[in-house]
Amino acid sequence: MRQNPERRTALLDAAIEVLADQGARGLTFRAVDQRAAVPTGTASNYFPNRDALLTQAGRRVFERLDPGPEVIGETFALPRTRASVDRLMHEMVGRITAFPSGHLAMLELRLESTRRPELRAVLTEQIKTNLQENIDFHLDTGMPGDADTVVHLYLSLNWLIIERLTLPDLFDEARTDALITSLVDQLVPPR
Amino acid sequence: MRQNPERRTALLDAAIEVLADQGARGLTFRAVDQRAAVPTGTASNYFPNRDALLTQAGRRVFERLDPGPEVIGETFALPRTRASVDRLMHEMVGRITAFPSGHLAMLELRLESTRRPELRAVLTEQIKTNLQENIDFHLDTGMPGDADTVVHLYLSLNWLIIERLTLPDLFDEARTDALITSLVDQLVPPR
Repeated sequence: MRQNPERRTALLDAAIEVLADQGARGLTFRAVDQRAAVPTGTASNYFPNRDALLTQAGRRVFERLDPGPEVIGETFALPRTRASVDRLMHEMVGRITAFPSGHLAMLELRLESTRRPELRAVLTEQIKTNLQENIDFHLDTGMPGDADTVVHLYLSLNWLIIERLTLPDLFDEARTDALITSLVDQLVPPR
Repeated sequence: MRQNPERRTALLDAAIEVLADQGARGLTFRAVDQRAAVPTGTASNYFPNRDALLTQAGRRVFERLDPGPEVIGETFALPRTRASVDRLMHEMVGRITAFPSGHLAMLELRLESTRRPELRAVLTEQIKTNLQENIDFHLDTGMPGDADTVVHLYLSLNWLIIERLTLPDLFDEARTDALITSLVDQLVPPR
């Protein structure tokens, strides 16, 4: 397998776009090569099989959604209040919505995993880890609310983002903002 | 267009299974004919085009998920308490999870609608109507919580069902039950 890291990353980014556009069924090595504008046969030199490509594309989505050290540093400096959680949740929904192909690609991977047990195992592990990191971060920062609060926010906001990305006229932007705030108001203790 | 209602319903039920199994891309008239075990050409006699088939399949999912007059009558007889809402939410998650192809088919329709504006308009209308019916029903029964409470329950439980259907090892059945109860506890006033 080839190892040029920039090339590998470009292929994974192309795979995310193909997944979001064409669905998992459209994800072939050839489609990835075309999307990445590289010679046919390139992707198959980087990934031993389609499952490896799918699971690495999933990992790449999380990598691209990582808020980065700056946001994390800022979070620790915020007061431990419900208002701060509200701000963080708006920031998170904005970050995920700004990368629509990432969220749609993950959804396509989930649907594909109902047909592929090995993909399901890897995806379960990725999502479990990501959720646990979110819980740990919330508790480490000392923000109000417990582990279940984080899970409930995760569940609601994931579906709210799906609404925004697939049926944007159901809740417009103002309504989406208001729903995030009222959700946080109901789920998170004041401080 | 042919009008035999039983035949039309059988074709829509077959379309739901094809959507859940093969994704929207797999949904052809031929695939529906095969799944319904009817002669090739039947589905195209019942639906003028693929969009009509897709939107009617969406409507059929809601029809099959309707709890029916018995559950609705029972609900009006329940005390107006958080415990009753908890019971109703468990019942609803159980009902939707027991028809996995319905929920997966709706998700495939949403993803397809990102590529087809006409499908998106109809689907938005269907889902808006269904959500409003849920809100009206909640308020009519006098259960605790307001319209936003119903929207938050809708958002969270939709994603929880996606987890159960696509990555069932993320939250097992006991954890799913506990999450529904803790969600209701946090979102719904006691009475």
